[in-house]
Parts: sequence; C-alpha cells; structure tokens
Amino acid sequence: MSKYREVQNRLNQILERADVGDRVSRSIDLFLTALVIINIISITLESVPRFYAAYKLLFIWIEIISVGIFTVEYLCRVWVAPSKVPGQYSFAVTCKARAKYMLSFSGLVDLLSILPFYLRAFFPYLDLRILRALRLLRILKLSHYNSAMEDLFEAINEEKRSFYAASYLFAILFILSSTLMYFAEYRTHPTGFQSIPDSMYWALITLTTVGYGDITPITAAGKLIAVGSAILGVIVVALVTGIVASSFNSQMERRNIIFEDQVRKALLDGILDHTEKADLERLRKEFGMTKRRADALIKQVQSMRAKK
Amino acid sequence: MSKYREVQNRLNQILERADVGDRVSRSIDLFLTALVIINIISITLESVPRFYAAYKLLFIWIEIISVGIFTVEYLCRVWVAPSKVPGQYSFAVTCKARAKYMLSFSGLVDLLSILPFYLRAFFPYLDLRILRALRLLRILKLSHYNSAMEDLFEAINEEKRSFYAASYLFAILFILSSTLMYFAEYRTHPTGFQSIPDSMYWALITLTTVGYGDITPITAAGKLIAVGSAILGVIVVALVTGIVASSFNSQMERRNIIFEDQVRKALLDGILDHTEKADLERLRKEFGMTKRRADALIKQVQSMRAKK
Amino acid sequence: MSKYREVQNRLNQILERADVGDRVSRSIDLFLTALVIINIISITLESVPRFYAAYKLLFIWIEIISVGIFTVEYLCRVWVAPSKVPGQYSFAVTCKARAKYMLSFSGLVDLLSILPFYLRAFFPYLDLRILRALRLLRILKLSHYNSAMEDLFEAINEEKRSFYAASYLFAILFILSSTLMYFAEYRTHPTGFQSIPDSMYWALITLTTVGYGDITPITAAGKLIAVGSAILGVIVVALVTGIVASSFNSQMERRNIIFEDQVRKALLDGILDHTEKADLERLRKEFGMTKRRADALIKQVQSMRAKK
Amino acid sequence: MSKYREVQNRLNQILERADVGDRVSRSIDLFLTALVIINIISITLESVPRFYAAYKLLFIWIEIISVGIFTVEYLCRVWVAPSKVPGQYSFAVTCKARAKYMLSFSGLVDLLSILPFYLRAFFPYLDLRILRALRLLRILKLSHYNSAMEDLFEAINEEKRSFYAASYLFAILFILSSTLMYFAEYRTHPTGFQSIPDSMYWALITLTTVGYGDITPITAAGKLIAVGSAILGVIVVALVTGIVASSFNSQMERRNIIFEDQVRKALLDGILDHTEKADLERLRKEFGMTKRRADALIKQVQSMRAKK
Repeated sequence: MSKYREVQNRLNQILERADVGDRVSRSIDLFLTALVIINIISITLESVPRFYAAYKLLFIWIEIISVGIFTVEYLCRVWVAPSKVPGQYSFAVTCKARAKYMLSFSGLVDLLSILPFYLRAFFPYLDLRILRALRLLRILKLSHYNSAMEDLFEAINEEKRSFYAASYLFAILFILSSTLMYFAEYRTHPTGFQSIPDSMYWALITLTTVGYGDITPITAAGKLIAVGSAILGVIVVALVTGIVASSFNSQMERRNIIFEDQVRKALLDGILDHTEKADLERLRKEFGMTKRRADALIKQVQSMRAKK
Repeated sequence: MSKYREVQNRLNQILERADVGDRVSRSIDLFLTALVIINIISITLESVPRFYAAYKLLFIWIEIISVGIFTVEYLCRVWVAPSKVPGQYSFAVTCKARAKYMLSFSGLVDLLSILPFYLRAFFPYLDLRILRALRLLRILKLSHYNSAMEDLFEAINEEKRSFYAASYLFAILFILSSTLMYFAEYRTHPTGFQSIPDSMYWALITLTTVGYGDITPITAAGKLIAVGSAILGVIVVALVTGIVASSFNSQMERRNIIFEDQVRKALLDGILDHTEKADLERLRKEFGMTKRRADALIKQVQSMRAKK
Repeated sequence: MSKYREVQNRLNQILERADVGDRVSRSIDLFLTALVIINIISITLESVPRFYAAYKLLFIWIEIISVGIFTVEYLCRVWVAPSKVPGQYSFAVTCKARAKYMLSFSGLVDLLSILPFYLRAFFPYLDLRILRALRLLRILKLSHYNSAMEDLFEAINEEKRSFYAASYLFAILFILSSTLMYFAEYRTHPTGFQSIPDSMYWALITLTTVGYGDITPITAAGKLIAVGSAILGVIVVALVTGIVASSFNSQMERRNIIFEDQVRKALLDGILDHTEKADLERLRKEFGMTKRRADALIKQVQSMRAKK
Repeated sequence: MSKYREVQNRLNQILERADVGDRVSRSIDLFLTALVIINIISITLESVPRFYAAYKLLFIWIEIISVGIFTVEYLCRVWVAPSKVPGQYSFAVTCKARAKYMLSFSGLVDLLSILPFYLRAFFPYLDLRILRALRLLRILKLSHYNSAMEDLFEAINEEKRSFYAASYLFAILFILSSTLMYFAEYRTHPTGFQSIPDSMYWALITLTTVGYGDITPITAAGKLIAVGSAILGVIVVALVTGIVASSFNSQMERRNIIFEDQVRKALLDGILDHTEKADLERLRKEFGMTKRRADALIKQVQSMRAKK
C-alpha cells in the first residue's frame, strides 16, 4: 500500500467514530464534540444584544477559529471518502466516493456548518440573523461522534408495528377531536377555532398535554370535548411510553439471551479462560451492559451447571 | 362455483385487508389509504379562506374524484357482502348479509364518507361548514386497511382489570378534587368555579397535566388543592402508563413462550426442515417479531438442546 | 343456627362484595354502583342553574329515592355488622361490632352519604351549596363494590422503597427550585413570587408539567430555573412511571411463578383432572389473568415435561 | 481501645445511617429527619407576612432550638470524623479526617444549615429574605438519613448509555425547534421570540410538555413548529420513561437472579436451616424485596428441585 493511501486510511479511522482503544481518534472525537458545544453556546449568547455588545470580539474569534477547524475537517473528510470503498482506486471511483459523501446527510451538515460564514464574507448584505441561526445546525455534526443513538433507534425498531398502530390511533383521535371542536366552537368563539387548522393546532397542543391555553373552549360542549381529548391524549401518551418501555425490555432480554448463550458455550469445558473472558468483555461493551449485570449472568450459568 | 360468485369472492378478497403475498389486494389497500390521507389534507386546507380562494377548482376536483371512487368502493362492498357468509345464497341470505354490512360500523363510516357530497348536491342550502367537517370522518375508513390496531387493543385487554381499577381511582380523585375546589373558590373567584361542572372542567384539565391556565385558583386553599391534584394526576398518569407497559410486556412474553414452544417442537427431530422454517416465519410475522429476536430465540432453544 | 342469624348472615353476604357465582349479591352490587353513578351525574347537573330550573322535580325525586335506598342500606349494614364476628353473640359483642362498622371509613362514608339530606330537612337554613357538594362524596361508596383497586395498591406496595426514594428526590428538587426562583424573581416580578409559598405553588405546577402559566418567570435567571425545573420534573415523572411499570411487571411475574408452580404440581401425575382444572381456573381468576395467558403457561409446562 | 475512642466510635455509629437493629441510631435519625421537616414548614410559613405577624415568637424559638441542635450535631460530626479512618490516630490524621468531612458535600450542607443564623446574629443588616431562604437548604441534610436514593441512582446507572443517547436526541430537537421557531416568528411576534435564548425558553417549556403559554406562536409556520415540537417532546419523554422503566426491571431481574442463586446454594443439602434463612432474610432486606416475592422465589426453586 502506498504511503498516500496509508495516511488516507489512518485519517479516515481518526475521523470515523473511535474504535475501543484508539486514543488519537477518541481525542479528536472529544475535541470536535467540545468545539460544537462551545459553538452552540457562543451563537446563542451572541444573539442577545447585551452580550453581543460586551463580548463582540470574543464571539468573532470563536467563529473564525471554529469555521477554520470545521473547514479543515470538511476537506479531510472529502479527501478520505474514497478509503471507505474497498479495492483499487480509479479516478471515477474516487470522484464517486467523494460525491457520495458530499451529498450524504452528514456531508451536507458538515457543509452547512461552514457555508454561512463564507456566504456572509462574500455577500455582506445577507440577513445576519438567519445566517447566525443557521449556524446552530452545527449541533447535527455531533451524530458523527455518537454511537448510543443507534441503539435507541434499534430498540424502537423492534416494536415498529405497535408504533404504527399508536400513530394511527393518534391520527384518528386528533381528527375527531379537531372536527368536533370546530363544530362546537366556531359560531361562538371570538378569536379561535375559525378554521379546521385552527382547531387542529388546539387539538395537538391538548393531546400532547402541553396545553398552552392560548386558545381554550368557551362553550359547554367545547369544554366537554376538551376534557375528553385531554384524557384520550394521556392514554395515547401512555401507549407510546408503554411501547417504548416494552421495546427496551425486549432489546435487553434479547441481549441477555445472546450473552448467556455465549457464556454457556464458553463454559462447556468447565473453565473460563483468558480468550473467552476477553470475548465476553467485548460482547458486554457492545451491548452496553454494566459489569455487575454481566457478572450476575455468568454466575447464574455457572450455578446452573454446578447443579447438574 | 359460478363465474358470478368467483368474481364476487375475488373482489371480496381484494377489498378485505390483504393477505401476505396478495399483490393486487395490497395495492388497492395502499391506494385507498393514500386517497383518504389526500382527502384529509385537502379538506383541512379548503377550510382556510385564503387557500380556498386560490385553489377552489383543485379542491372541487379532488372531492368529485374521491367521492366517485368511494362510491364505487361502497357499492362493491355492498355487492360482495354475501361472500362473507359460507354456503348457498338465497335471496334472504343475500339481503341479510348486505343489510348487516350497511348497518355495521365500517358500513356506516363508508356511507358517511360519501353522503355529505350527495346531500349538498341535492340540498344546496345546507350548512357547508358542517358538511365539510363531516367529510373529515373519512379518516375512520383507514381501519379497513390496518391490522396493527387490533394488536394494541388485545395487549390492553390483557390488563383490563388494572385499567378498571385505575379508572375508578381517577374518578374518585376527580370528584374529590372538583368538590374541594368548588368549596375553596366559589365565594372569591371572580369568573371561574361558579358551578360543579366548572370545577370538574378545571379538575380534568389539571389531572391530565394539560393545564391550560384559563381557570386557576386564587385562594391559598385553592392553590393547595391544585398542587395536590397535579401531583395525584401525575401519579394516576404514571399508573396508566405502567399498566400499559406491563400489558405490552405480558403480550410479548406470551408470544415468546408460544414461539419457543413451536421451535422446541420443530427441533424434536434435531433439525429445522423447510416446512418448519416456513411455519416459524409465519408465526414470527403474525406476532410482528423482528427477525433478530426470532433468531435469538431459535438459537437459545438449540443451545439448550445441545447442552443435554 | 337461628332463623334470625341465618337471615343476618345471608344479608351480610349480599351486601359484601360478591363471591364468584352469587347472582343476587352481584346484582345488588351492580344496582348500588349504578345508583351512585346516577347520583353523581344528577348532583353535578343540579348545580347548574339552567338545568336546576328546568328539571327541579326530577332532581328532587332522584335525591329522595336515593337517600331512601342508601338509608335502608346503611341500617342493614349496621344490623348485619355482628355477623362478621365469629362465634356466639352477646349484647356487648353485637354493640361493639356495630360501633366498629359505624366508625370505620366505609361506615362514615355511608353515613355522610345520607346525612346532608336529613340535615337539610331539619335545618333548612344551612348552606345549600355546601350540602349539595358534600353529597358528591357518595362516590367513595363505590369502594364497597370494587376489588381491582386492592390489586393496584398491592402492586405499588412491592416497590414502596423506590417510591420513598423518588418522593424524597422530588421534595429536594421542589425545595431547591422554589428557593432559587424566589431569589431570582422576588425583586422584579410585579405580582408573583412574593413569598416562598408563592414560589412553591409555581414549582409544583411546573414540576408536575401541568404549567398553568398564571405565574411565570420574567428574569433571565428565573427562566433558566424554570426550564431546569421542567426538565427535572419530567425526569422525576419518568422515575415514578418507571417504578410503577416495574411494580406491575414484578407482580405479574410473581403470579406467573405461582401459577406455573401450581400447574407443575397438578401435572406431576401426567394429567390435568377436573379438580385440578377448577383449582387453576380459580387461581387464574384471582390473579385476573386472561385465559390466553393461562393456556400459554400451561402449554409451556406440559412441553417442558414432554421434553424430559 | 481507650474510653475516648470508644465513645467517639459509638457516636459515629449513631450519627451514621442506622444499621438494622440499632435502636438508638434509628431514633436519632428519625428525630433529626423530623426536625428538618418541621424547619422546612416553619421557614416556609414564616415568609408569609400574615403568619409571621401572628406567630413571630414561635418561629424564632423553633429557629433557635433547631440551630442549637444542628450546631451540636455539626460539632459532633467534626469530632467523630477521624473514627471513619482505620488504624492509629496521629494529629495529622485527625486533622485531615476532620478537614475532609468539613469540605465534603454533606459537611458543607451541615455548615450551611447553621451559618445563616450566626451571620444574622453578627451582621444584623444582611438581607433577611435571602438568609431565610438559604435556611431551606436544610432539606439537603436529609440525605444523611436516607438510603433508598442510592438504589434509585444505581438503577439508572445500569442504562446510562441509553440516557446519553436520549439526552443527545433531546439536545438536537431542542436546538432545531428553537432555531426554526426563531426564523418563523421573530419578524411578526410583538413580544416573544426576539432572540435565540427566548426561543430556547419556549422550546424547553414545550418539549417538556409544561406549556405555560406565556409565549406562543402566532404565525401558521410557528404553530406547525409548535405542534411538531410538542409531539417530539412527548416521544422523548416516552423514551426517558421507557429507559427508566427498563432500568428498574433490569435491576430487579439481576436481584432475582442473585437471590435465586443464593436459595439454590442454601438448598443444596435439601433443607433451609436457621443460618441460611437469616442470610436470605438479610439479602431480601438489602434488595428491598417484599416477603411475598421472596417466598415465591424460594418456593419456585424448591419446586424445581423436587421435580428432578
């Protein structure tokens, strides 16, 4: 392998989410995560006139340095994109890999993180407030450096059928509630419920139990529909929560089954040697199990064996 | 079987929820679902004067075409109703089957989906706004094409005793909270809490944690009752959620037991042949299990067998 | 046993919560439950001037008949109280048993259900509104006829230690949040946060996620404390819900263990005879299990036996 | 051991959380807990001018006596601090142990509980309201006497990876929701959404489903973003709740595994002798299991043994 490709591959490793044990990659992840968080705080405070007046220079320097680092990061990511493709590089393959990254969700996020700065530099009359707010989308960069969220979505995926059902139930309740409320209130209410979208806004704010109170029913029938919606809203929220809780349990149980199975296999010869322990440890980390839980499971399998 | 009955049966199959593998039936389901969703959006936007003025013709054509399709669907459903009854058709049986469909919940929903249009056509002076809103009930047609909701209700059914208990507890808290609040506030409050139903509206909006804030207590005693109600409301919501979560777990566990049992039977001869795999796959789909979960369960049973 | 005691015992059986299979007792339970519900509705509607004017006579007759029936019920309960005590009756035992019932929670509820009517009859100048509202407490009579709530409290009892912990955490957050908010707002807020109880009212309405919005922070620090409280409130609510869900699961699992154990014992001789089936059915009902769940458990035990 | 150290050790035992069976220590714990609660109530009521005028002397005496007791407690804790360190005492060790306690979280809380009183005594012109509110932090003293909260945190710790993921998801939704809302409203809204922190306040109050309603959107786009945020808020709350519920289940299951294992070992010789029963009872208490649950588990293991 040429030196060029070696550097490219190593840089790819570093920029990708860190493997266990890769110190450099882990440090870069942490540094970029911290930088994103500092950016979010700085952009937020900058939008308050009082702070902007007092610390204008600080905000500008944070912005310049951050955009500099993010630009280097973006260029590196574009450069190393081909090393995600196995096999020989031709010019076509290289371009395709780079275009793929640039048009991917994370590629666009990376671009969007730096673009407002350059746009502002070249077109100084653009709306500063919108550009400033756009910079907040840098928060999406964090998904590069975070693996726990995949777990979350995987858990939810296990019960997606129940989620569809709950969503459909919610949709029906929502439409019924808006329609009935519209009937009940549109004639008497002075300001609200004058169109179905108006009613729908109210219905969603009620069903989710947020309840701003900016539009509330004034007729007796309307109040009855409101409390009915509130109760059904609570039940739907309970359903969603119950489904999520069940998903997590389901995921955890599946993992326990796989882990116990692995322990059982490792214990077939009666002892847990060094390699087997390392394997179990890796599985434990992959599953995000605590040490205590893993030990309890291992002890249980041992005890079942001893009983025979 | 006569050609007439064959066509009738096939049409019935198509209109009913699709079996796995029936492409035509699946497509019709999807088409009608999409049509209902388009209708909901179109009816909602139509109620906003600005949109109505701009796209009047589009809304009218969507309505005419939709009602046309739903009318054909309704007539077809009436026609095929007898093919749900087994055995020979007599005129009496045919009429009874059709009347049964027409008076069933889904039959009435199907009728209600098209009726406002024809009423409006024949009686042009009816209240347009109410007829328009009535058309929103087309959302209920979706239940024809959706099976996941039965699962949801089945899961809840497993813990119905706990739901009764929670409902009763909620009713007691609700009555106590309204009554006490009425005592505490009716003399001093300028606008609210002037009758028990007034207090009840407040109590339900509080207990469900919606909290509009359109009626809030002003006396110290009233505020104390309000916070007490809020806390008890949270606990009751937690109870309902806990019961739902437990229901889902219970359903999932029962399914795991049945699935494992089936795997165990299939493995009695030591191997999992093609028919057995197909059977397990069907069970997996019926239960809405993910492939990963099913595989984990199969591996566990195999591993238990190997251990012996 | 004398005829007198026989009648007394039978009446006691009827008034107590119905055993499975006792038709008369079950009917009386249902009748009295329905009467209480009718009373609640009637008392609520009566408090609305419009309805009172229109249906005055109906409300009065419902009240007179209900109080008549509840009075008979109360007298019967006082009379049969001694039959809850085993052994011979002496005058002292009889009196003690009756006094015990009359001073018990349910005895006082029964008395309170009828007292306002007689007070009003003898002292016509008492505040009608308070007496009317007091009659709403008849809802508490329902606890006579309902067994599911005991289950609920039993389930919660299994995790009472976690509840104490969550309550303590809630108390700390609540005090901290009120105190900090008081510091942040008392100088600048025009109407609210003028004393610690004021802040506490706000804190509880926020921590329970009710959020009326009748008192909201206006300073930057206050808003920061508000969002912090809201987030911590959500986490505490999640904790409570999680504990409840875990309690229900725990109760369900314990019941499964006991049920499976019973099935295992019944199957020791290989078959499930009539008596054993009846025993399991009784246990199933006591535990409020669905038939499907019980069947799945029985099949699992049978399959485990067959495997050996 | 010298008399001096014996007294010191015993006092340390008494002041630490009580062991099972230590009556004196338990009583002191209860007494100090009660005193803290009385203090909280008294300080709260004192801040209401009406109550302060009426019961001024009572409040002062409660304060003086409480501070007296807490001062004695503080001095005792400082004195006994060295007895937590094993081995011989030298002057250096003694000082270090005492300094360690004084700078620990609970040491600072203990100091903060009494300091405002002495500050007020020596500097009578300090802001009375702030000092009064500071005294509320005495609630934190309760953590000395409470063990259940450790359980709570331990349970949550088992699923910390999922919590990180949910927090990150929440952060992204929060930033997106604030940014979009800022775009949608800042031009048209008369009072709110004038800076990103303004939007962030609104977003957090909505995402947590508190929904004060002090700032609500007025544009159509803003309302759409609001309902989207409300729905996503509900889903994130459901996620957090589901994770917590799963954590509790996980903790409970691990404990069941350990307990069953202990029972199995104890039953190896076929009987459960006195020592083994005492061991299981201790484990049961440590795990906060109910007696019924423990009995069910023991019976299950016995029944499994019998079956062999």
